[in-house]
Amino acid sequence: MLVDLIAELKNITAEDRVSTNETILDRHSKDESYHTPSRPDVVVFPLNTQEVSDILRFANQHHIPVVPFGLGTSLEGHVIPYHKGITIDFSLMNTILEVRPDDFLVTVQPGVTRSQLNKELKKYGLFFSVDPGADATLGGMAATNASGTTSVRYGVMRDQVRDLEVVLADGTVIHTGSKAAKSSSGYHLNGLFVGSEGTLGCITELTLRVYGIPEHIMAARASFPTLDQAVQAVIAILSAGIPVARVELVDEQSVKQVNRFSGTRYKEAPTLFLEFHGNEAGLKQDVTFTKEIVFEAGCDDIQFETDTTERNRLWEARHNLAYAYVHGFPGKKMMVTDVCVPISELAGAVRHAREVVTASGLSGGILGHVGDGNYHVLLMIDTQNPEEMSKAEQVNERIVQYALARGGTCTGEHGVGIGKKKYQLQEHGPALKVMAAIKQALDPNHILNPNKILDHPREILGRV
Amino acid sequence: MLVDLIAELKNITAEDRVSTNETILDRHSKDESYHTPSRPDVVVFPLNTQEVSDILRFANQHHIPVVPFGLGTSLEGHVIPYHKGITIDFSLMNTILEVRPDDFLVTVQPGVTRSQLNKELKKYGLFFSVDPGADATLGGMAATNASGTTSVRYGVMRDQVRDLEVVLADGTVIHTGSKAAKSSSGYHLNGLFVGSEGTLGCITELTLRVYGIPEHIMAARASFPTLDQAVQAVIAILSAGIPVARVELVDEQSVKQVNRFSGTRYKEAPTLFLEFHGNEAGLKQDVTFTKEIVFEAGCDDIQFETDTTERNRLWEARHNLAYAYVHGFPGKKMMVTDVCVPISELAGAVRHAREVVTASGLSGGILGHVGDGNYHVLLMIDTQNPEEMSKAEQVNERIVQYALARGGTCTGEHGVGIGKKKYQLQEHGPALKVMAAIKQALDPNHILNPNKILDHPREILGRV
Repeated sequence: MLVDLIAELKNITAEDRVSTNETILDRHSKDESYHTPSRPDVVVFPLNTQEVSDILRFANQHHIPVVPFGLGTSLEGHVIPYHKGITIDFSLMNTILEVRPDDFLVTVQPGVTRSQLNKELKKYGLFFSVDPGADATLGGMAATNASGTTSVRYGVMRDQVRDLEVVLADGTVIHTGSKAAKSSSGYHLNGLFVGSEGTLGCITELTLRVYGIPEHIMAARASFPTLDQAVQAVIAILSAGIPVARVELVDEQSVKQVNRFSGTRYKEAPTLFLEFHGNEAGLKQDVTFTKEIVFEAGCDDIQFETDTTERNRLWEARHNLAYAYVHGFPGKKMMVTDVCVPISELAGAVRHAREVVTASGLSGGILGHVGDGNYHVLLMIDTQNPEEMSKAEQVNERIVQYALARGGTCTGEHGVGIGKKKYQLQEHGPALKVMAAIKQALDPNHILNPNKILDHPREILGRV
Repeated sequence: MLVDLIAELKNITAEDRVSTNETILDRHSKDESYHTPSRPDVVVFPLNTQEVSDILRFANQHHIPVVPFGLGTSLEGHVIPYHKGITIDFSLMNTILEVRPDDFLVTVQPGVTRSQLNKELKKYGLFFSVDPGADATLGGMAATNASGTTSVRYGVMRDQVRDLEVVLADGTVIHTGSKAAKSSSGYHLNGLFVGSEGTLGCITELTLRVYGIPEHIMAARASFPTLDQAVQAVIAILSAGIPVARVELVDEQSVKQVNRFSGTRYKEAPTLFLEFHGNEAGLKQDVTFTKEIVFEAGCDDIQFETDTTERNRLWEARHNLAYAYVHGFPGKKMMVTDVCVPISELAGAVRHAREVVTASGLSGGILGHVGDGNYHVLLMIDTQNPEEMSKAEQVNERIVQYALARGGTCTGEHGVGIGKKKYQLQEHGPALKVMAAIKQALDPNHILNPNKILDHPREILGRV
């Protein structure tokens, strides 16, 4: 069987684009999370949609599991092929196909990374807004409905997707949208495929919304005596209707990691990293008003980064924060909580998270996209130490339960993968049955990233 | 059978909330479009979700068609029960259940209208952004993914829906989202059910995003010698990155209808109705810049409405435009095209539309939400005159074909109903099969608003 599989894949693609090399299999056995690695049988590197279609048609006929793979930066085991089979690595499909500046649209292949895209867009005075910590591929970002520091202003990945080309389980190639800015035509397949984590199809092309680089940009760091005051300041900024472009919470421990890793000398206290976009006059007024609000909330120091270099340094440091932790705790693996709560519940949720982490005895940082009510507890753990693993899992569990009890979600942006699967029934109730029915209808042989997001539909449709 | 049906519905709800009265049946036999009316067997007025669930469970057992009905303001025959059966009228489920000002969220029953909601929200300094021409129900607006004049800034109905309570075909009650501002948990059912036009379930509750009333608002009317110059001005405003809150095109003929119906004395020339939202300083700068742009594009007159009364009058006149046409052409019915094209194609598309209308000999106005690339040709036709009907259908057809050939959509905001069903295969290609598979999985007995959006899945799954 294995020999046929490899021969067939080589026949579909090319001799040198099908690999069972140990190093390659290893690299595709894991993501950036603490989840246990597991190797695929084979990794294939397609060049175009036709090849992906041929691979899926073949895999579907023979009921072989298929996992799509971008750069492996997922955080909940999304790309780990626990059922072995074929991993499709999209790194060779990394061409920016078209930039349409007048339409604020770009069409890319799934292996293009967000920084690669932004480098190209800069030539047109444009930028792509979604910026997760990792320099992920756009295919992967669509698959998990990624977001980042700018979502409070520009929205999440799903908001940027105008059209996807998707190869279905049986090899059929579809488009999920169009190039129109809005549509009421047919079911909203864009939204369904974004965030489906490779369980409904493989994304082979994306048409994405982009934005003009703002006329004026101003960044700031505001530090507070307590975490609670920083959170209260965020709530006040949002209530005042200030169209802040970024508002990130970074706790004291995380600022320490930033300084150590990025060589900055930021004050080691609970801090908000802020950014404002707009025309000159409007931005000035936003900034003035924000200053008043943060000081009223107890801010003891605010530093503005007017200079582009310093501003880029600030956001690079923020983006590298997860890597700063990884670097600061050699040999340990990262477990990150990812709940999102209604803004009115944010202060309580962050307080609760701090208490839970302290009580656990683990060391963990709190940070996040607090303008959306989304925050992370970042725990560095020794996955070989059962006690530490169990404590970390309890922290995650308690934080998720707190969020779900208050109308929140177990994952704001990282996705479900295998790590958040156990919360799906509790969060979605009988709606899980709808998801299972959709999965069953679109992937009857259950070959597409099996058992991610959902258990086998057979089990769910009998269970709820 | 019919007697059992009525007895059972009375048993589920109440004697006086089940009607076969001729006037009631008539009122539920049509919408605001030119599509041929057809009566349901019975109209039922539920009070709560449990009743809706019981009605659907019963209907599903007996394979009786069910059409959900808000206020009947749809424009493509969405609510016309061509297969008879039960029409569920949601007008008694019209309570605003909760306003959460800190979370910028509101929870309502589906029969609440947009103006009813805005009246309540005003007390909190908040507003709901989506504003189709009609004062539709929010359930109906979600069902068609409605939008309106503010979508260019605040997005369409789908962007506002945080959670829906939906009753499925078999009576199961689900929630499609949560109260969190973002989520990557499970498949995006919010997006799927919004725009599904009652074909996948009945919406019984909506949690919607609302916004703070902007600090400063300024409206303007800019008139141009030609339609083309007005369109070019819109493209230039968008390219400049001005965050315009509304930008509506109204052609000369439509301004005439406005003046006649609303008693205004606006200059009868191709006109842009504009609105700006922001802080005082930012708004001033936006307005100054916009003035420069429109004059450069050939604008010969711009009038600012600084006063709230005049501003409200302007937008009320714009919202009443369809009714102005209906009033201006007694005995005729309205046919409205609704394509949406990429902005770079807008000028050509509007020129083409004008040519097509002129060539047809029909009188028709052009207007629309041009900031989104969405525009309407409004034709008043005598549905008893086969020649006029055929001409109008040809106009619609040519405009749709033009849009589809350029990456656009056949319907930007009105939805498919029965009027745009014939374009679904052309627009979506093999993706139509995915839609049919979803419909089949969620409504196996095909009772929910049958043959709207899609033909029977059996036909599509055999056809594509």
